[in-house]
Amino acid sequence: MNFGDKSVAAREKLGGLIFTGLKLPLTTKEDLSVYYSPGIAEPCRRIAQDKSLSKTLTVRKNTIAVVSDGSAVLGLGNIGPEAALPVMEGKAMLFKQFGNVDAIPIVLDTQNVDEIVDIITKISPSFGGINLEDIAAPRCFEIEKKLLERIDIPVFHDDQHGTAIVVLAALKNALLVVEKQVESVHIVISGAGAAGIAIDTLLRAAGAKNIDLADSKGMVCCARQDLNEQKRDFCSLNCGALVDGIKNADVFIGVSKGGLLNAELVKTMAENPIIFALANPDPEILPDEARKGGATIIATGRSDFPNQINNVLVFPGLFRGLLDIGINQVTEEMKLAVADALSKLVSTPTVEKIIPAPLDPGVAEAIAEAVRKF
Amino acid sequence: MNFGDKSVAAREKLGGLIFTGLKLPLTTKEDLSVYYSPGIAEPCRRIAQDKSLSKTLTVRKNTIAVVSDGSAVLGLGNIGPEAALPVMEGKAMLFKQFGNVDAIPIVLDTQNVDEIVDIITKISPSFGGINLEDIAAPRCFEIEKKLLERIDIPVFHDDQHGTAIVVLAALKNALLVVEKQVESVHIVISGAGAAGIAIDTLLRAAGAKNIDLADSKGMVCCARQDLNEQKRDFCSLNCGALVDGIKNADVFIGVSKGGLLNAELVKTMAENPIIFALANPDPEILPDEARKGGATIIATGRSDFPNQINNVLVFPGLFRGLLDIGINQVTEEMKLAVADALSKLVSTPTVEKIIPAPLDPGVAEAIAEAVRKF
Repeated sequence: MNFGDKSVAAREKLGGLIFTGLKLPLTTKEDLSVYYSPGIAEPCRRIAQDKSLSKTLTVRKNTIAVVSDGSAVLGLGNIGPEAALPVMEGKAMLFKQFGNVDAIPIVLDTQNVDEIVDIITKISPSFGGINLEDIAAPRCFEIEKKLLERIDIPVFHDDQHGTAIVVLAALKNALLVVEKQVESVHIVISGAGAAGIAIDTLLRAAGAKNIDLADSKGMVCCARQDLNEQKRDFCSLNCGALVDGIKNADVFIGVSKGGLLNAELVKTMAENPIIFALANPDPEILPDEARKGGATIIATGRSDFPNQINNVLVFPGLFRGLLDIGINQVTEEMKLAVADALSKLVSTPTVEKIIPAPLDPGVAEAIAEAVRKF
Repeated sequence: MNFGDKSVAAREKLGGLIFTGLKLPLTTKEDLSVYYSPGIAEPCRRIAQDKSLSKTLTVRKNTIAVVSDGSAVLGLGNIGPEAALPVMEGKAMLFKQFGNVDAIPIVLDTQNVDEIVDIITKISPSFGGINLEDIAAPRCFEIEKKLLERIDIPVFHDDQHGTAIVVLAALKNALLVVEKQVESVHIVISGAGAAGIAIDTLLRAAGAKNIDLADSKGMVCCARQDLNEQKRDFCSLNCGALVDGIKNADVFIGVSKGGLLNAELVKTMAENPIIFALANPDPEILPDEARKGGATIIATGRSDFPNQINNVLVFPGLFRGLLDIGINQVTEEMKLAVADALSKLVSTPTVEKIIPAPLDPGVAEAIAEAVRKF
């Protein structure tokens, strides 16, 4: 059986892959009297007097929601809430396994920005944090912005910021290997959706000055008339097709779709090119082909090649840290610090190892520790 | 320490009292490839082609939401969503312990009927059922009615129907003990909120013909001008105060507030009176006082007296059965069958044992079995 069939077979047998459990036994009359009625009234009374106690006396202390509208799921696109649910469950498994965070999958039967914001706001007293997932751009930017204004628990759109943090961590080490500086390299990002825009933003915060964005129509050039608000904020004077835009670039970061790049194009890049081909499951270029074109460092999103750029390196530890210190906002400064902590887990970066592997021990704890310093 | 202090102490140490867990290990590259990316895409694809598969291939197969707006929590009243959360957690513990149902506490920061209906409808693709909890009457009736029209998973307002089912089961056995017939007894229900109205409805479906309802202003008499829609549906010609209304009654069912009844009033009832004094934690009359007045059978909601009428006898097994057979509606017929199954668990009813105790073995399984026959 292949991975997909095994995945279905497990679910046919078990239903969902997460369950709820009790932290304490509930087997005697005394247990029922303490943890249910009448004892339960006392924590209720305390929280009624001071709402903030709900963050320490209830599931909010360690529970977040993984929320999606099913509009941009994996490479499958807009498949709706029911079909998105397995991914949210999978994410919940990763949260628990790597960060000991209790995560609840919530899929929404609406793709309207204001409705999504309203629903998440009104269920937010049930949770200690909100991880947004697989929501299409540009809607995701607006949803996140409005939520940050309305609710007092952390909100994190993993497809944006999780991706951006891991990319920055990997790029730091890649640049060490090729002995170039982030301030002076020319970076081309292919893909101007949630991930591309967030990567561009975070790399600039980290000091990058020369970044060009491309979308499915070519370079996001300021002369274009078809740019949405987000793309307009990131447009540049580098016009034309992607094949023109990447000439002499030092770094290519693909969060777009499989097969956009080939060895010939890589040959047009600057010396010692760095290629992050992150489209999943089919990267913009396969490692062998990239190497044929002279790529020095190649990373993908896949676990069957070295240098896997995977959000799971960040989100479990990040929320672990946020819940531990009860902080409400993930700042730009925090993202930079987390990327820094992640990159430093690789003591001696090489072309084959610019980033930890998801199963390397201690990753989530190092990320959580970086967050807890805020 | 009393029950309340112990309850708070456990939460100060542990936060919430439920957690999430993984049904399968996630420790190897293969695990990640099967249960997360890329294997996860296959169940998503299957569900995208046939939404109904989400009820067998995801957490929906065994997960329900326990939803409250915090408007009528225990005897504490309208304490809001944050303060209601411990009760929803406690309920989730009972669901798991007795029915092996995974239940997720969801508290809502709104008390508007249409907003509540809309939110629950739009998060419903995440769940296999909805247990409504601690929502004030008459709002709760409208919310339940609208949800039943809009969503295709079972919706059950436990404060109404759970209570009604357990009361009916206990009444069946109590009537056996005193050798009276449900069709001919005069029943007075004190409390015309969610529970009182639902009890009245279900007892009528079970054959009761002579039921009078009372609220805080006295008997719900059709001549009154202050009745809401629900109360008007249940008004009678028995007017005056509760003390007038219960004269010669065979059965008193209190879902109102502590201390409404005394021995003198019980003496005015018919021979061999049955008293269900279910207000919590202070019943309408304490067992000793009721016996002084000549009550033959007395039940309360408390675990420290015999004959505890407690919803936990029903809801875990009910949802266990519903999830097992994938049925969407809890019909009147099903409620009657469940009450019947519950009453029959007491093979020889006596004045001290008209209903199983919450910790008696096999209760939830018997209820689930009754549901699975539908």
